[in-house]
Amino acid sequence: MTTNNCIFCKIIAGEIPATKILENDKVFAFLDIRPVNPGHVLVIPKAHHEMMTGTPDELVSEVFITAKKIMTAIKQALRADYVAVSVVGTEVPHFHVHLIPRYFRDNMEAFWPTKEYGKKEQMREVAERIVKEIN
Amino acid sequence: MTTNNCIFCKIIAGEIPATKILENDKVFAFLDIRPVNPGHVLVIPKAHHEMMTGTPDELVSEVFITAKKIMTAIKQALRADYVAVSVVGTEVPHFHVHLIPRYFRDNMEAFWPTKEYGKKEQMREVAERIVKEIN
Repeated sequence: MTTNNCIFCKIIAGEIPATKILENDKVFAFLDIRPVNPGHVLVIPKAHHEMMTGTPDELVSEVFITAKKIMTAIKQALRADYVAVSVVGTEVPHFHVHLIPRYFRDNMEAFWPTKEYGKKEQMREVAERIVKEIN
Repeated sequence: MTTNNCIFCKIIAGEIPATKILENDKVFAFLDIRPVNPGHVLVIPKAHHEMMTGTPDELVSEVFITAKKIMTAIKQALRADYVAVSVVGTEVPHFHVHLIPRYFRDNMEAFWPTKEYGKKEQMREVAERIVKEIN
């Protein structure tokens, strides 16, 4: 499932250098070279899957269990107040989880701005549409 | 492991109303009442654990496998361009995963602003500190 042009596959293969944090049979973790804060780690499955939604359940498990282990290490090592987890999916098309050391005083928002639903029925209608698509 | 004052435990118990998306033995999912975009879902373990890092591996797996299933449904139901996954951990102290329908034209940043490491050695030094804390 390796694709020749995938930068993350090349990192796993050692063809592009990276600062490795952890490697096991299924998962690879390394420092993001453009960190939100120093110690920002990317956790990826070794097998090439474009999106989290297309990644097999067992591998999704492996990635997040490994992420959890690294989060604890980041928190300890860098005295982070917490570690944010983020999957975006608009950048490199190889499923990856960002682990970001965060500090209460790092002057970044925790999140995107939120809205409110206009009416109670709008919420119910949105929920019904989602539920209908769950297999 | 239920705590009396936890708003999410009360939602699971039906003591506070919520718009449910999915429920199984271990996991509960419902609409966030203050969505980043309509269809923003929270996925939580039924057992009360404050942080992802303190949640047992099996339950972390269950939460993210369920999240993955719901992400596909959100994408289909709401024609989202992608679904962002985010764990912050500074709000309600009951581990929860945000699933956020995102659109290329929703005019929000994908992410927080990034920095650069000053020197190659700084990267290596940060990595060594994290690796040392991995059990």
